[in-house]
Amino acid sequence: MSEKMRAGLVGVTGYTGMELVRILATHPQLEIVQVTSRKEAGQRLRAIYPFLQGMAMGELTICQPDLSLLAKECDIVFLAIPHGAAMEMGADLVDHGCKVVDLSADFRIRDKTVYEEWYKVPHTRAHLIDEAVYGLPELYADKVRPARLVANPGCYPTASILGLYPALKHGLVHHDNVVIDAKSGTTGAGRGLKVNTLFCEMHDTFRAYGLGTHRHTPEIEQELSLIAGAAMTISFNPHILPVNRGILATMYTTLKSAQSLEEVHAIYSREYKDHSFVRVLPQGALPELRNVRGTMLCDIGLVVDKRTNRLIVVSVIDNLCRGASGQAVANANLMLGLPLESGLNFAPLVP
Amino acid sequence: MSEKMRAGLVGVTGYTGMELVRILATHPQLEIVQVTSRKEAGQRLRAIYPFLQGMAMGELTICQPDLSLLAKECDIVFLAIPHGAAMEMGADLVDHGCKVVDLSADFRIRDKTVYEEWYKVPHTRAHLIDEAVYGLPELYADKVRPARLVANPGCYPTASILGLYPALKHGLVHHDNVVIDAKSGTTGAGRGLKVNTLFCEMHDTFRAYGLGTHRHTPEIEQELSLIAGAAMTISFNPHILPVNRGILATMYTTLKSAQSLEEVHAIYSREYKDHSFVRVLPQGALPELRNVRGTMLCDIGLVVDKRTNRLIVVSVIDNLCRGASGQAVANANLMLGLPLESGLNFAPLVP
Amino acid sequence: MSEKMRAGLVGVTGYTGMELVRILATHPQLEIVQVTSRKEAGQRLRAIYPFLQGMAMGELTICQPDLSLLAKECDIVFLAIPHGAAMEMGADLVDHGCKVVDLSADFRIRDKTVYEEWYKVPHTRAHLIDEAVYGLPELYADKVRPARLVANPGCYPTASILGLYPALKHGLVHHDNVVIDAKSGTTGAGRGLKVNTLFCEMHDTFRAYGLGTHRHTPEIEQELSLIAGAAMTISFNPHILPVNRGILATMYTTLKSAQSLEEVHAIYSREYKDHSFVRVLPQGALPELRNVRGTMLCDIGLVVDKRTNRLIVVSVIDNLCRGASGQAVANANLMLGLPLESGLNFAPLVP
Amino acid sequence: MSEKMRAGLVGVTGYTGMELVRILATHPQLEIVQVTSRKEAGQRLRAIYPFLQGMAMGELTICQPDLSLLAKECDIVFLAIPHGAAMEMGADLVDHGCKVVDLSADFRIRDKTVYEEWYKVPHTRAHLIDEAVYGLPELYADKVRPARLVANPGCYPTASILGLYPALKHGLVHHDNVVIDAKSGTTGAGRGLKVNTLFCEMHDTFRAYGLGTHRHTPEIEQELSLIAGAAMTISFNPHILPVNRGILATMYTTLKSAQSLEEVHAIYSREYKDHSFVRVLPQGALPELRNVRGTMLCDIGLVVDKRTNRLIVVSVIDNLCRGASGQAVANANLMLGLPLESGLNFAPLVP
Repeated sequence: MSEKMRAGLVGVTGYTGMELVRILATHPQLEIVQVTSRKEAGQRLRAIYPFLQGMAMGELTICQPDLSLLAKECDIVFLAIPHGAAMEMGADLVDHGCKVVDLSADFRIRDKTVYEEWYKVPHTRAHLIDEAVYGLPELYADKVRPARLVANPGCYPTASILGLYPALKHGLVHHDNVVIDAKSGTTGAGRGLKVNTLFCEMHDTFRAYGLGTHRHTPEIEQELSLIAGAAMTISFNPHILPVNRGILATMYTTLKSAQSLEEVHAIYSREYKDHSFVRVLPQGALPELRNVRGTMLCDIGLVVDKRTNRLIVVSVIDNLCRGASGQAVANANLMLGLPLESGLNFAPLVP
Repeated sequence: MSEKMRAGLVGVTGYTGMELVRILATHPQLEIVQVTSRKEAGQRLRAIYPFLQGMAMGELTICQPDLSLLAKECDIVFLAIPHGAAMEMGADLVDHGCKVVDLSADFRIRDKTVYEEWYKVPHTRAHLIDEAVYGLPELYADKVRPARLVANPGCYPTASILGLYPALKHGLVHHDNVVIDAKSGTTGAGRGLKVNTLFCEMHDTFRAYGLGTHRHTPEIEQELSLIAGAAMTISFNPHILPVNRGILATMYTTLKSAQSLEEVHAIYSREYKDHSFVRVLPQGALPELRNVRGTMLCDIGLVVDKRTNRLIVVSVIDNLCRGASGQAVANANLMLGLPLESGLNFAPLVP
Repeated sequence: MSEKMRAGLVGVTGYTGMELVRILATHPQLEIVQVTSRKEAGQRLRAIYPFLQGMAMGELTICQPDLSLLAKECDIVFLAIPHGAAMEMGADLVDHGCKVVDLSADFRIRDKTVYEEWYKVPHTRAHLIDEAVYGLPELYADKVRPARLVANPGCYPTASILGLYPALKHGLVHHDNVVIDAKSGTTGAGRGLKVNTLFCEMHDTFRAYGLGTHRHTPEIEQELSLIAGAAMTISFNPHILPVNRGILATMYTTLKSAQSLEEVHAIYSREYKDHSFVRVLPQGALPELRNVRGTMLCDIGLVVDKRTNRLIVVSVIDNLCRGASGQAVANANLMLGLPLESGLNFAPLVP
Repeated sequence: MSEKMRAGLVGVTGYTGMELVRILATHPQLEIVQVTSRKEAGQRLRAIYPFLQGMAMGELTICQPDLSLLAKECDIVFLAIPHGAAMEMGADLVDHGCKVVDLSADFRIRDKTVYEEWYKVPHTRAHLIDEAVYGLPELYADKVRPARLVANPGCYPTASILGLYPALKHGLVHHDNVVIDAKSGTTGAGRGLKVNTLFCEMHDTFRAYGLGTHRHTPEIEQELSLIAGAAMTISFNPHILPVNRGILATMYTTLKSAQSLEEVHAIYSREYKDHSFVRVLPQGALPELRNVRGTMLCDIGLVVDKRTNRLIVVSVIDNLCRGASGQAVANANLMLGLPLESGLNFAPLVP
């Protein structure tokens, strides 16, 4: 008899669903008891994910989503389905008394108008926007614990906000003139069928996309503005890398005064000293994707460029684990009264 | 006014069509004047292939396939469409007096029954099977020159046949007990939308597929049997590599007598001395994919393993160029009275 | 105060040392207390492996190897140093009463003459060859438990032996005519500085090496012969893949009688049913590297090719984890009275 | 008897030497007659570069560098050796009456003090700095033609300058506040033996390096200042990609007035209309590495971000061809009275 808490997973065919399965396969206190997918219902989980062969979780049968059953069987439900669909399923599950971690963008944006402008769909469950908690543990753990509905942060926002948080909180840099040049592994483009994410269209090449127009822009601006205590407009510019996992964001800011690297480094180190998932690297060191592969870690490197009076922050996460499913599990841990790190203490897979 | 010969290209959205476009973009004596695709008709070629931006060929408008127009405008037509469709289009074009290089499998197999068994479609233009010439220039250039219809060899067969030809022709090895373990770049899996060829499903991994059941098996057996002068059954086993281009086939045979490497190497060198596209590597050297990247070259390495009395042949080609579109151009060159190498003298792109 | 068992690690700059560090970073019952390296002595472990930043193990200071200190401080010592050096250090540690897992080849080959012929060095500690246990847990767990000195199997032998074991044990296939075509990730080539393992010399390419002459050949033959109960000579042929981790071995054998896939599959399944690290895939399924990434798993796929009367076995492992350091930890677990799987229940990192 | 012009190549073991060899292997009007390397002297070129097997150039014997012989045998000499060494060899060859294209940084920086500060070596041939021509054909073809000594531009500067040239020349953007976030393939890190460019240290990962301190910074500032007619200080920040070839530079500038994309695009298109190697992509399109692979092309994409009033320019080149050896051949073509494009009209190798 298991005494683990019980989780449901709605949507399993995408990379965030796949990563939730990987993480929960070894979680000591939380197990998946229901997996739903309209497309794959009827199959065993191991049939679509052979890497689960021989593990208990692989024997689960995928079923059609059923609100009552999910609410009855699960302490918490993860939504790994597209925005638009998630708001309705999320609201219904909350109504049924179920705790929900929504991995989509549906409850991240506080301003309904901004959401609808960037996501091009009406928000049909806007009454829950205020209640939903933005689930970035380093900033909002206290709000996440009692929450019924957590909006799990986007991958780019997670890397960006953690990287800029101490600088903005402590007023080190100007609010205007922030440029984020972000590079993501290809899992960030999803598991849907598109010619431009075929292996031979991504391998040995590199490109930018959505410069200035990516949907994560308002999410980043919202959170940075809250930290800075003033409205911020930023330039956010994503690129796609021929690697599986990881985001590296290079963030360009202008220092208000001539701070030394030592001073900036001390402020960052102090700010994150009680947050074991964030590693402020030693002075002079720069992060790289592989050092956080498969983990919840966010590695931050700092550069003070005296020639141009800039603070350049390089922030690195695993987009699937920290930037999506691992962070969702961290939020579930908090909502269920478990330790934040439970089931999440992976060592990076290097090389 | 151009004085180049004029080619048509039927089917352009796959990797073989794309590679034909790349090769013909710099061919000094042959140019594409018609490109057809049911799916992309109406667009400029540069719209679907931005790499052609700024080149004359990029300005071509893709149109619906039109037999009369193709026959009227073109000295030769390349068919880069799926088997089944190719046999009909190919036969019709020949009826209209047009020369055809068919890159599909439709006219490669001499025995209609074998074709239908392996390809699971009826052969509706079987009257042309006998006339069609198997377009492997090193073996059949003399038959290709006067041909109206050339069956362009498959990628795996090209690498396999060129690698085993001297050994079988000169009776060095036994006919039974030939095992081919072949590894292909992912372009070999085509440009169609399938989950298992997405970047994140191929990158940093490797797998076998179709062991013992790949459709190129009867094609290889047919040609090896002709060379050996006896029916041969082989074990052909493909794998898919996380690289864009290239096939490396490791071929295991049993020597009839205790030949030295020197002797075998001399036989291979002599056999290919007048064939500039085949390079028999120095004794002790083994080929690698990149040394033939983007070219018509076939590199062959030889190993005599005295412990097991085996001759191991390693054969390497670029599956898209030598294994498909470049070989199609070579055949077209022969059919049009041009030098075999015209437009095909690329230096390998290393690294 | 920790109550974990205490391990020493001699040699840390190579990929096997690096992988031991990764695995032991999260082992619940075994911890590294001493790390030695002549080259890096004096540095913190996190200085050479930034992925350990923030973890307790990263704070360890690398020191010069000191036999007495190792023997005094450690319950067990892992040797991740080159063959030749390992035999002397291993013998000395055993003399000092220390348990040893040697990741080199020095004590794998039972016949001193064969060792010296293939490894080109004299064996100076041959008196321990008989005592040393070949540490493949599925075959030799009972001998490993009481051992003082375990010879950790090579990566290619691990994949090959596990793949062929049931077929040979149950007499399904002929002893002659076994061909192993193996493909390894580039970590298998080590972390030493060589032009041909630079990124730009390996990326987007593929090659064979050491066909018929690789040093793992006699190790595979020794173990297969023991299983078969008769001397076997095999053809072993390695290739190097542009991936970090993983070995896929495609093994060609000839069936003694016309077995069905069902029968062979049943024999394999029965043989491995109590060995959770070995997964015999469902009939018709073939393994791939990523499904075992970062784990102790060995995935086996079976093909019966009736046309050629062959049994083709495809065996996949992670060369660093199962093929080296993870297997070393499994052996240490057994030698220290811990459960075999302790610290080794990783879910594969997919994608 | 060849009537081609004759080139010498000093330094052949690095990637720029290797790429010169690839390009000149098919150049119709220029051939290599001397190759020198202290390290590899005595070997045939094909012995170190098997991809040249079977080509005439592969038969060349590498010799020790000999000034008189180079000057006597060659119409022009390419220097593919490290900075510091290049200045002396270059000056000596010019003294011997030989034309020189120097691929190192030694004669790029007009201000000796700046050179010595960034490159940490004294400039011992400063008398030639004024005479040397900065070999960016789109800007300086007229000066290159009569030059004896051409300083071949760096890879990052080539991409950066071509991308910003029209914007600065036409005063579209402010001179301060330019940020260049550049990403280079790993060939950019050279072919020397370093742990951090081993395959397993680069594959499936990504990192920044030298933020704000890269040696190409003063070269970019020098040329942009000349174009702008005012001293410019920029923030230049490189990253290294797990691909073989290519640089993508994302450049962030602030518009002086509210220009539309149409207007900016028209200015760029007009500026480059007679320069066939530069392709200003259609409005809305962004460049990618593969579309210039193996070529002299520079692809430029333009974004006007009205929210932040920025002009973002994305510029892409092949770092080895356009960013080094191909550009060196273009300069040699000009210096020898050949057409700029001679031997350089490659179609991009896609995929």
